[in-house]
Amino acid sequence: MSSIGTTDRQPAAGGPDAPRAEIGIGMIGYAFMGMAHSQGWRNARSFFDPVLQPRLTVLGGRDRAAAADMARRFDWREVETDWRALIAREDVGLVDICTPGDTHAEIAIAALEAGKHVLCEKPLANTVAEAEAMAEAAARARARGVRSMVGFTYRRVPAIALARRLVAEGRLGRLRHVRAQYLQDWLADPAVPMSWRLDKEQAGSGALGDIGAHIVDLTQYLTGEPLTGVSALTDTFVGERPLPDGTGTGTVTVDDAAVFLGRFGSGALATYEATRYASGRKNAIRIELNGSDGSLAFDFEDMNVLHYYDGRAETSEPATRGFTRILVTEPDHPYLAPWWPPGHLLGYEHGFAHQAADLLTAIAEGTDPAPSFADGLHIQRVLDAVLSSAAHGSAWTEVPAPVPAADPAGEPHRNDTSRRQQQHQQEQRKEEVAS
Amino acid sequence: MSSIGTTDRQPAAGGPDAPRAEIGIGMIGYAFMGMAHSQGWRNARSFFDPVLQPRLTVLGGRDRAAAADMARRFDWREVETDWRALIAREDVGLVDICTPGDTHAEIAIAALEAGKHVLCEKPLANTVAEAEAMAEAAARARARGVRSMVGFTYRRVPAIALARRLVAEGRLGRLRHVRAQYLQDWLADPAVPMSWRLDKEQAGSGALGDIGAHIVDLTQYLTGEPLTGVSALTDTFVGERPLPDGTGTGTVTVDDAAVFLGRFGSGALATYEATRYASGRKNAIRIELNGSDGSLAFDFEDMNVLHYYDGRAETSEPATRGFTRILVTEPDHPYLAPWWPPGHLLGYEHGFAHQAADLLTAIAEGTDPAPSFADGLHIQRVLDAVLSSAAHGSAWTEVPAPVPAADPAGEPHRNDTSRRQQQHQQEQRKEEVAS
Amino acid sequence: MSSIGTTDRQPAAGGPDAPRAEIGIGMIGYAFMGMAHSQGWRNARSFFDPVLQPRLTVLGGRDRAAAADMARRFDWREVETDWRALIAREDVGLVDICTPGDTHAEIAIAALEAGKHVLCEKPLANTVAEAEAMAEAAARARARGVRSMVGFTYRRVPAIALARRLVAEGRLGRLRHVRAQYLQDWLADPAVPMSWRLDKEQAGSGALGDIGAHIVDLTQYLTGEPLTGVSALTDTFVGERPLPDGTGTGTVTVDDAAVFLGRFGSGALATYEATRYASGRKNAIRIELNGSDGSLAFDFEDMNVLHYYDGRAETSEPATRGFTRILVTEPDHPYLAPWWPPGHLLGYEHGFAHQAADLLTAIAEGTDPAPSFADGLHIQRVLDAVLSSAAHGSAWTEVPAPVPAADPAGEPHRNDTSRRQQQHQQEQRKEEVAS
Amino acid sequence: MSSIGTTDRQPAAGGPDAPRAEIGIGMIGYAFMGMAHSQGWRNARSFFDPVLQPRLTVLGGRDRAAAADMARRFDWREVETDWRALIAREDVGLVDICTPGDTHAEIAIAALEAGKHVLCEKPLANTVAEAEAMAEAAARARARGVRSMVGFTYRRVPAIALARRLVAEGRLGRLRHVRAQYLQDWLADPAVPMSWRLDKEQAGSGALGDIGAHIVDLTQYLTGEPLTGVSALTDTFVGERPLPDGTGTGTVTVDDAAVFLGRFGSGALATYEATRYASGRKNAIRIELNGSDGSLAFDFEDMNVLHYYDGRAETSEPATRGFTRILVTEPDHPYLAPWWPPGHLLGYEHGFAHQAADLLTAIAEGTDPAPSFADGLHIQRVLDAVLSSAAHGSAWTEVPAPVPAADPAGEPHRNDTSRRQQQHQQEQRKEEVAS
Repeated sequence: MSSIGTTDRQPAAGGPDAPRAEIGIGMIGYAFMGMAHSQGWRNARSFFDPVLQPRLTVLGGRDRAAAADMARRFDWREVETDWRALIAREDVGLVDICTPGDTHAEIAIAALEAGKHVLCEKPLANTVAEAEAMAEAAARARARGVRSMVGFTYRRVPAIALARRLVAEGRLGRLRHVRAQYLQDWLADPAVPMSWRLDKEQAGSGALGDIGAHIVDLTQYLTGEPLTGVSALTDTFVGERPLPDGTGTGTVTVDDAAVFLGRFGSGALATYEATRYASGRKNAIRIELNGSDGSLAFDFEDMNVLHYYDGRAETSEPATRGFTRILVTEPDHPYLAPWWPPGHLLGYEHGFAHQAADLLTAIAEGTDPAPSFADGLHIQRVLDAVLSSAAHGSAWTEVPAPVPAADPAGEPHRNDTSRRQQQHQQEQRKEEVAS
Repeated sequence: MSSIGTTDRQPAAGGPDAPRAEIGIGMIGYAFMGMAHSQGWRNARSFFDPVLQPRLTVLGGRDRAAAADMARRFDWREVETDWRALIAREDVGLVDICTPGDTHAEIAIAALEAGKHVLCEKPLANTVAEAEAMAEAAARARARGVRSMVGFTYRRVPAIALARRLVAEGRLGRLRHVRAQYLQDWLADPAVPMSWRLDKEQAGSGALGDIGAHIVDLTQYLTGEPLTGVSALTDTFVGERPLPDGTGTGTVTVDDAAVFLGRFGSGALATYEATRYASGRKNAIRIELNGSDGSLAFDFEDMNVLHYYDGRAETSEPATRGFTRILVTEPDHPYLAPWWPPGHLLGYEHGFAHQAADLLTAIAEGTDPAPSFADGLHIQRVLDAVLSSAAHGSAWTEVPAPVPAADPAGEPHRNDTSRRQQQHQQEQRKEEVAS
Repeated sequence: MSSIGTTDRQPAAGGPDAPRAEIGIGMIGYAFMGMAHSQGWRNARSFFDPVLQPRLTVLGGRDRAAAADMARRFDWREVETDWRALIAREDVGLVDICTPGDTHAEIAIAALEAGKHVLCEKPLANTVAEAEAMAEAAARARARGVRSMVGFTYRRVPAIALARRLVAEGRLGRLRHVRAQYLQDWLADPAVPMSWRLDKEQAGSGALGDIGAHIVDLTQYLTGEPLTGVSALTDTFVGERPLPDGTGTGTVTVDDAAVFLGRFGSGALATYEATRYASGRKNAIRIELNGSDGSLAFDFEDMNVLHYYDGRAETSEPATRGFTRILVTEPDHPYLAPWWPPGHLLGYEHGFAHQAADLLTAIAEGTDPAPSFADGLHIQRVLDAVLSSAAHGSAWTEVPAPVPAADPAGEPHRNDTSRRQQQHQQEQRKEEVAS
Repeated sequence: MSSIGTTDRQPAAGGPDAPRAEIGIGMIGYAFMGMAHSQGWRNARSFFDPVLQPRLTVLGGRDRAAAADMARRFDWREVETDWRALIAREDVGLVDICTPGDTHAEIAIAALEAGKHVLCEKPLANTVAEAEAMAEAAARARARGVRSMVGFTYRRVPAIALARRLVAEGRLGRLRHVRAQYLQDWLADPAVPMSWRLDKEQAGSGALGDIGAHIVDLTQYLTGEPLTGVSALTDTFVGERPLPDGTGTGTVTVDDAAVFLGRFGSGALATYEATRYASGRKNAIRIELNGSDGSLAFDFEDMNVLHYYDGRAETSEPATRGFTRILVTEPDHPYLAPWWPPGHLLGYEHGFAHQAADLLTAIAEGTDPAPSFADGLHIQRVLDAVLSSAAHGSAWTEVPAPVPAADPAGEPHRNDTSRRQQQHQQEQRKEEVAS
């Protein structure tokens, strides 16, 4: 961790006069995810004011001109076209991997071995074997104080974090049902051209790995339980698509959609659906949990809202029961304190600021950020079981139990920056509003 | 059909001065379904004014006092405690079976053999064998002009009928996804006592047959396609429940919940979920269809509404696309013409009036009402495949193809009373409003 | 009250074996409201099983053929073409007035003077003077034990009745805001032809009296407070419309829309809007109340739902506050016990059954039904003040304080049949379901 | 405009290699609005990549330490405690005023006279007289090429901008109704302490100027018409509130709530409501427009969504009409192209980026940004008329006609950066996604 800046290495208590350390970020990839992570780093700094401050040191990309343009717009200080050179830099303390999945393993393992903290976009890898190697590298690095995290950013949507808090408090009672859908529609039209995301070599899998991975992670995170087995059906609806250059057609080698059943450790039944063919659904991550005492429902297309049904006799009365539409924008909601007043919504990109802030806090405090590479490996195993079941007549396929976390499941938000900073931020905001 | 009344046997053209025939109804069962069917018969008469008018001739029930009280309240002329006597009556032309599923086969077959038209509540039977016998009896009776119908009433919710019309018009393009849930919560509390619905002997199955049967029927009706196979998971979450009389506990011998995957004839993927443990969901029949050109979504808890996404370039423009919330209360919506002005909602019970009106129209016109006993048999086979798959490690289980209908799938609403009477009713209403 | 039937005049305690009295209903008018009231009477009998049972004795209408057809369909025993003859009949104990507003006063006063209980459709009258005469006649009749009620049926929508209960329990704290809209769109198209509803002679006023009257009543009912003054703006957007027979155009002499501000006795501010030009809104009665401790929101286009915000520190916690979407279909919700299981929606017409049941209960118990003719008079005065303000540059116009009710405001649901019968009905239903 | 940077003064065509000018921003105020504007400037640069690039030159604030902390977090290069010194700086080309309303006039006029472009937070001023002086100063400055704009940022919410586009295209036909509410609840509790916002000296007015001003602006913007008169009612519900320091109570000298009626130039009727006492409504800006051919509805608490009812016979059919829920996140929606993929929501702060980008574009292109100071003056006159009407028994009070804009009303989005850059941004994004 030689690259943590020179001003002060002690985790500070926060507040405007606190001493702050800096850590140099080296980010690889400058497309969609690169933009989102750039916003994440700078917004984490401006709004969460972490004790370990991120410095946008270097942006890596093979196309120097494109990377330089992105660097100019987002204030990255330098550009590297060779990711190995980026990792080797003394002024880089954290490597942020925003490249396609087939490159994750090589880069992440190299970075960890070089002693750099790593944030790796999801899915962790394209295969279980790669993910295993990465998880092992992460475990070795951890022994040397090097941290790693996989970017299942949707965990940091405030409504999701609130849902996790409510589940962890036991509000739902005994969990009975989980239903999760990730619905997009950008492939519904068969005329949409071929792309790398439809090629198994580069993308690993289709809707399953790209978006199904998110709902696997979210449901395990929300319930605090692992999936123990699945039964699945997948399909490729449109097998040939026009090449972008108009020279003919290419063969789609990944799944267009995956539907599967699952069972959680506690016995709850689950249904999953991941597709890019749900006309009219743009980015609908819909999750509902039903327990003996209550229920929760969420849809990312209305991401500032959590629906909560309280069925407990002690805290609700029959005549006024129903799903409460919680607008998750209050200062005591997760991550909200440093942002805007109630009713002023957050958007997609804010999850990346929360992710960055939590990771910086974990590094500063010497704790394990979540989700870990081990978590990413378990998700990869679930995806693998789904494909295997689909290939074997939907036969029930068990998922190996995850390695018990150094950071056990039952403690959500251990690295939740928002909680720790809440008191201080709220006071700060009050003063500002009054000024 | 000797019991069709004496005034006029010719199907009449409708209108206040048209000659009308009468048919005597003999209904067996006077509980929840008995009340709903009673409303159905009399509302069909009052609002749809069918050419074949129902006469509430006799109500059958084992407990004479209870049946008599119900008869008094709903104007049934007489009461019978012996269903065989009821069937034998000369003045009964149609037998309406509202008893638990284990009695359906015996009563229905006897009635058909006695030459009575039959309306049988769903599920058709508790076993495939019974359902086969019933379908055969129905086919034999049909050759003699005797009609039969199974009471999957939700087909007659106007929003569902409108959805079917839109699908049949090809609005969705190529069908890709079906997702269907029937969610209730009245068993979420483990203290809820044992009842006949939780006993396999009487109920056949649990959530699967009681409510899962409805979403199997609805999705096949809406798509116009049969399910070809399933993969399933079922569970009984609470195995012992207190007896109602407080003397101990009884063993639950049916499924508390069933989740399954399916595939339609066209290749579309489907997910299903039927449960009585979804806290906060009271009678949520939620169905969504996604096709290459559009989507439809429905929730029975908001039953007057259909959500329709039109993704066709010819009829919608990108900037204003979205799900349209259609309030299905306009006079040109299915079944709406004889009811109230736009925006004046219908409720649960109205489906029973639509069902009664359609059946009376079919009998009068000498056509086959839908859904037929053969349709009911096919649904029973789907339920059977679900239980079989669940018992065999969720293995993919094929469902035998349904017998091609005498009344082919592609023609929805052939018996849709509302369409035929629409013009006449609308004019009538206009006059009334103006009077 | 000579016409109350012969079997038993004592109010009975309910239950299948209880002795029951009968009262003969004479209804005048057989169009839209006539159908709604017919449903109300017979459904009140079948579902609420009141101790005083309604008998559909005679239907009055000038066009004998049309009235006879309606009578045939809804089982009215006889038809009268002369309303005076109908009132004079010995076998009529209650006169139900469903004719246009310009006939209300004459009929109602004659009926009351003849000793008949009266249910009069809203608005009570077309002018304040007529309404005053009616209220006086009602007061005189009341001294002789004759009851009267004006048909603001929307009070009996269960969600509205629940809202009133919550307000009366003090859930909202100090009331601050009332906003009410009644939005329809059937005149948005200027090609819609002229009708009696657009003629001041027959209709009294336009949107104001037809639909604005409802939101005036509902907000006063819900708050338990009278409006003390208003400031208004009205307009007739389309002054000439084609005659229905195509012979030319007619002049619209009523308001197309009315918007007004108001203040309640407690100081709360109110906004109102009544229009038939709100494209896409079919029958949107939207009401929101905001108090210091909570809020309520309702929309008739989703009439089975009440939205409730509980902001009280003792009963809600900040992190899970929000509007709770209460599906008002539980057995302990107002009027719901005799109907269907939870989640099985009611529709527009059910309010008429609740109204009929409440009126029958009041007559049987010798109490005053609400809303009274005095209530109807006060509403007429509010409408009058609105028109006066609009005619005088929106100047603030006070509304005379209503005469204190014999039946004081603070006691909602005194005549709420559903509460009294709830226990008994629930038990009855349980038995039936189990049978 | 001497301060526009040195690299290139020519408006550039955009694209990574285009030459770019820079303009130094001097922002005064560092509290809530200061944070929002800081985000606006830097996000405008990163995502819209304007030809005139903003440089965060200097942040002004009286409290140097607080300002310096804010400057550190948002990368403002320097801090000034004297706003006159800030205005005088050579390297400041644009002054951004984020201070309370009572300081706007003095600062803005001084800045305009110093030749600096000005962005001034709303409301333009606390009095009509100040606003007049500011509008005059703006007109004088304009003659010298100096631009000014008032910060009614909600115009730049994409759903609002789309609504304006649809209205301007004539989709609604003849406008009939406007209903607008701005509902908050932070004063509902009488224990909330006194603050400068409740003091007329500093705040000018209460809910009316703070939030009512927004719905006045939005409705005039959306309709393209001015309000011609109003009738109003205001109230201060809680007259005394505890002082923050606990030493006693302070007197609230502003309105707690304002409700008013209005009429638009075209004759449409309007209702308005601005309050901080609507329990459960956090930042609910709710606007609905009804025209003869269609309707639009919006709620800021669901700000990525616009509801559109198309009632035109040419483009919609009766059976599928309804409000379409448009998720305004498509690349061809206003301002969306440079942001995230469809279904990935924007939040409150994004409007500030759109505002900044539009202003930079206008300056670079030498056109007038909107809303102008003249627009701000007209809004001030509406607010003045509201207070005057409320003080005179709600008497109808006319609003002087606005000065015809140099930039006429009928041309929305003349300065809409998003449209101009759309093609180029979309292509850029496509490449990035593919990379």
